Parts: sequence; C-alpha cells; structure tokens
Amino acid sequence: SKSYNITLLPGDGIGPEVISVAKNALQLVASIEGFKVAFEEMPMGGAALDAVGVPLPDETLNSAKKSDATLLGAIGGYKWDKNEKHLKPETGLLQLREGLQVFANLRPATVLPQLVDASTLKKEVAEGVDLMVVRELTGGIYFGKPRGFSTNENGQEIGFNTEVYAAYEIDRIARIAFETARKRRGKLCSVDKANVLEASMLWRKIVTALASEYPDVELSHMYVDNAAMQLVRNPKQFDTIVTNNIFGDILSDEASMITGSIGMLPSASLGAAGPGLFEPIHGSAPDIAGQDKANPLATMLSAAMLLKYGLGEEKAAQRIEAAVLDTLNRGFRTGDIHSAGHKLVGCKEMGEEVLKSI
Amino acid sequence: SKSYNITLLPGDGIGPEVISVAKNALQLVASIEGFKVAFEEMPMGGAALDAVGVPLPDETLNSAKKSDATLLGAIGGYKWDKNEKHLKPETGLLQLREGLQVFANLRPATVLPQLVDASTLKKEVAEGVDLMVVRELTGGIYFGKPRGFSTNENGQEIGFNTEVYAAYEIDRIARIAFETARKRRGKLCSVDKANVLEASMLWRKIVTALASEYPDVELSHMYVDNAAMQLVRNPKQFDTIVTNNIFGDILSDEASMITGSIGMLPSASLGAAGPGLFEPIHGSAPDIAGQDKANPLATMLSAAMLLKYGLGEEKAAQRIEAAVLDTLNRGFRTGDIHSAGHKLVGCKEMGEEVLKSI
Ligand SMILES: CC(C)[C@H](C(=O)O)[C@@H](O)C(=O)O
Ligand SMILES: CC(C)[C@H](C(=O)O)[C@@H](O)C(=O)O
Repeated sequence: SKSYNITLLPGDGIGPEVISVAKNALQLVASIEGFKVAFEEMPMGGAALDAVGVPLPDETLNSAKKSDATLLGAIGGYKWDKNEKHLKPETGLLQLREGLQVFANLRPATVLPQLVDASTLKKEVAEGVDLMVVRELTGGIYFGKPRGFSTNENGQEIGFNTEVYAAYEIDRIARIAFETARKRRGKLCSVDKANVLEASMLWRKIVTALASEYPDVELSHMYVDNAAMQLVRNPKQFDTIVTNNIFGDILSDEASMITGSIGMLPSASLGAAGPGLFEPIHGSAPDIAGQDKANPLATMLSAAMLLKYGLGEEKAAQRIEAAVLDTLNRGFRTGDIHSAGHKLVGCKEMGEEVLKSI
Repeated sequence: SKSYNITLLPGDGIGPEVISVAKNALQLVASIEGFKVAFEEMPMGGAALDAVGVPLPDETLNSAKKSDATLLGAIGGYKWDKNEKHLKPETGLLQLREGLQVFANLRPATVLPQLVDASTLKKEVAEGVDLMVVRELTGGIYFGKPRGFSTNENGQEIGFNTEVYAAYEIDRIARIAFETARKRRGKLCSVDKANVLEASMLWRKIVTALASEYPDVELSHMYVDNAAMQLVRNPKQFDTIVTNNIFGDILSDEASMITGSIGMLPSASLGAAGPGLFEPIHGSAPDIAGQDKANPLATMLSAAMLLKYGLGEEKAAQRIEAAVLDTLNRGFRTGDIHSAGHKLVGCKEMGEEVLKSI
C-alpha cells in the first residue's frame, strides 16, 4: 500500500495544539483509505530560534524538501517581534516558501451556512460567499532585489524594496489561477495597479495574453484599491482572484475576515513540482496559546488540502472536510466561532469530535 | 475684504456636474462670511487629453500652483483606459500631486447616523465609525526610481518598481498624522509591513522616534494585512491611521466602502507650504455621467475641507458641513444613498437643497 512522508512544523503559540489534532485526523483517514503516513516533526519559527538560533534550520528545510508534503501550524509571537530581520520567525517562513519554491498560494474564503452570523457583514451580503485567492508567493516585493538601507544624495537615510516580476513568474501563477477558476465557477479576476505600476502593467499583459488558452474562463481585471472596496461591498461577485504577493497578502486577509471565521480557513502553497506547504491562515495567537482554546478546524482543513493537492488523496480529503461540517452541524464550536445554542469546546475536544465524525 | 483664487478642475464623467454644484456653495458661504472667491476653471484628465493631448497641461498646473487652493471633480473613463501610461488621465493626477508637492492625503471615513444602513456591515459594527486615513501621497512605489521594463539575465521580460522612503518623507507625514490624531481622539495607528520590507522598517523606526514629541498621542503599529482585516472586523477601533502611498490607496478605499456611502466622502491633499488639492474620493462614474444622478455631497464636503485646510475659513467650512447634514435630515437622497422613506433627488436638486440649508 502507498506510504507518504509528511513533515510537521508545529511552530509557535497555538501551532503545536492544532497540529497535534490534525495529525490524528490524517492518521485516521489514512488507515480508512488504506495508505500509510509517516510524520517527521521539525522545529521552525520562534521555536527554532529558541532551540538552535535560526528561524528555519537546514534540517527542517531538508525534511520538508524530502517529504511528500509539509503541514505548518503557526509561527511568531511577541517574544521575537523586536528581533533583527534575519532572526524573525517570519523570515523563516519566507525562507521555507522560497526553499520549496511554492509560488502559488491558494487561499479560499468561504462563508459556511452554519457560521454566517460570525461575519461582521450583513447576512445577505455574507451568505454564499465562496471565493479563492490565488496569490503569487515567491516573487514581487517580498523577494525583489535591490533591497535594504542606504543614504540618498542629500545624506538622508533611505529604506527601499523592489517590486519586480518576470514574465514566466506571471505566466505560471496565472495558469494555476485559470485552472483553478475552470474547476470552480469559471470566473477569474486579476487584481493589479496597472494604472500606476510598470510591474502591474506587465502582469496585466501576460494574464491577458493567456486568456485565449482558457476560453471557458471569463477573465476580468480590477485595480487593487477597487478590489479592497468590492470585497466589502459585494464579495459574492468574486469566484477566483489572482494577484501578486503583497496585494494577495492584503486582499486574502481582508477576504478571510469577511467570512468572520478565520479560525476555519486553510491554505495551500504549491510549486511546479516538489512538495507543497499547507497551513491555516490564522496566526500563532500567543494570547490563547497552551490554554486548549484554539480552533483546530483551519488546520484540519489544511490537512484536507494537503491530502487533495499534496498527495492526490481526494477521498481522504473529502472525509476530513465532511467531518468538519458534520461536527459543526452537531453543534460543536470553539470560542472564536461560538454563539448561543451551541456547545463550547476546547481544541482537543473539537479534534476528538471531528475524529468521531470521520 | 479677503479674496481667494480657486482653481476648479471639473475633469471627466460626473466631475463637471459635482463641481458646478460645489462652486455655488463656495460662492454662497463666501458672501455670507464676507470674503471673495474668484474661480479659474481648467482642463485636466481625459478632458485635457481630448482638448490638448496631455492629461495635465502646463497652464492647468500653473493655475493650481498660483491659486490659493484647487478643487478637483473626478478624472478617468473607459475611453482613455487603454492609453499608454503618459497619456492616462491618472498620470495627470499623479503629476498634479507631485507638481503641488501635496504629500499628505487626509481621507476621513465617517458613518453618519443618517446613512448607517448604507453600509454592508452590521449596524452595530458600522455605527459610530469615524476614522481618518493619513496617506503619504508623493513618495513610495508610486514615484520611486528605478522603474520600468527590462530583460533579466535569462532574457525574460521584467517589469519593476521601487518602493523607497527617505527619513524626511516619513518624518513630515508622521508629524501631520500625530497632529491630526491630537485634534481627534488622540490615537494613531501606523500601518506598515515591517516584518518583510526594509522601506517599512525605516517607516516604523522614524514614526516610533517621533512618539516622544507627542506624549498625548497613543501610538500603535499594525501590519497592513492585519489592518485590512481589522477594518472589517471592528473599524471603530481606529481613530487616525498613517501609512504609505500604496497601502493608503488600498486601506482608505476599503475604509470608505465600510461607510457604505462613498458618494459622501471628501479628501484633502496638503503640502508643507503652497496650495492644497481637494477632491471627492469617488471616481468619475462614466456610467451615470451627464444624467444628473451623481451625489454632489462628497464634493461639497471637499469644498468644506478646502475652506478649512486650504483657506483657514473654518466658519464657512462649518456652514457647508452643517448644511449637508441638514439636507440629509430633511430627507433628501441621491440614488446611491437612497432608501425607502426618503426623497430621491438628482445632483442639481441636491445642490439646491444644500444651498437652501446654508
Ligand atoms: C508572516 C508574514 C511574513 C506572511 C506574509 O506576509 O506572507 C503572512 O502575513 C501570510 O500571509 O502568510
Ligand atoms: C487614480 C489613481 C492613480 C489614484 C491613486 O492610486 O492614487 C486613486 O486611486 C486615488 O486613490 O486617488
């Protein structure tokens, strides 16, 4: 029978709690579907800084590279916030993305009927929202060179970064986006700032040129400032959004908050070949860490994305997704999504209920 | 008696309609308060492209520079969307901002009790929102060099821009923001991406260094992705936000949509010395242009900001602001903010009702 190696990166804050719960779910669906999973747990982020002094040890990156897929909990915390850049937990995450060359970040934002009240948007605006942000993850201003500090001609201190995209980088992320849209409702909105930025003008040109290869997908373009507005005004107008690294960072977070339940949202980061990286979109929530209060469902759903996109085990993925919905239907809620009439549970109990549903 | 020169830039789409209405209001409050206003109307944006082939003719920039303040309607439209960069209406706007050196863009987002239902956010989330985005307007990635198109070492086409800030640019916008916060509720949130970008690290350092000069202002920092979320989750937590050009573009538009009535929102762009630029934050709305459907209140309120920040005529400014509220209280609504039980009026009639209220 098939056997997969999965690297687990619990990380910081609530990371270890949610990873431990998701691990159990992976093990259970594997045994039901008849494949094997072997886990390797490695340090990353603040935990790695404390243990070995760097946010992404070589051993951790190597484990992730050799494995079939990597599941990350969360990284960061107040403790390391003032660290120099190369000693920040976030830097480890950027190094991991670059090291794995996972250029395509898929971030769904879905309003579940069970949780529509969690949104700060009016019910009629929030219900039925089901969009996917395809964010470019290994290029743009996050990685562009030159970058750094210097002094200008007047002796003034300056800080600078470069937003840069090469044609092939845009082409490959756009293809993923067109294919994603094709499997969804066939609508793709490319977001840029082509009225001001040359990097966006190239972006728009390359995306537009691809449209003829995907005649079944309806392509539109939107400026990023307008997209930030439209997500608030009428998020249902969106199916698939494709955008660059920094705009994707901002818009995917905005979209996820529109659902009102960021404790529910997973993400997948994929490369052309090689293993993917899967993680909940929420942070490490240091204020509730170690208190068994975290919502493990985003990590459960990230494990489902890992099964689907990372291992091609669709059925096992569907088992987890169905079990998450079933657990919600049975009325279980962690604190972040709790409302009157539902059973308030902790991270562990929520995990056990999902296992029962599986 | 005092006399002021005001440059009017009607621009495109609904621009001429809203400017004509605001001009009447300026004239009326001037005569009541006992000062004179002389108007010079100049072409700009698409209108200037059609007339003389450039989006910002020298005569227009010179008029704005010589005047005491400039009031802009709106620019842009489908017709010029595919123009090359130097022939885009937007480029004219960027040249105007640069030419006037108006580095501080003040963009209030206020939910009026009369219009709380216009927001897509739940009433309890939207009501009472009253925030001000102070956006840096003449620096950062909008103007940074180098920029353009090139080929990389692999012969691949690239497009690139530079996000760059010098210490003095951050210092001067931060001072305006601290002073703005001081006159408001004393809370300033500086938004950056200092966990990734060097330009943001310098931003945070300079803003932080200023805090000791404003001990009465409570300073906090937030990453831009989190800010995009927090505006949706709980916009009331914000008083004054200060951020760079591109983040300000995105967040101020998001904030304005949270009010649900972008037809109501003004903006002011100010320099260290010299005349300011005042404009509604909405666009040129080509689909309703020339149909007497536009909401002129954002331009009215921009005229009020012009009186207050541009000419120091506080009382005249208050007259317009009070008249706008009074007109809303008397039940008049343009289509964009109309709801059952109110009187639907066009742009002109709304303008006349405001004049009556004045
Ligand atoms: C932690 C940070 C570097 C990261 C990013 O900006 O990409 C995060 O915000 C995300 O979206 O995964
Ligand atoms: C039209 C465009 C160039 C402009 C900008 O990006 O600054 C607009 O979006 C704004 O916010 O005033």
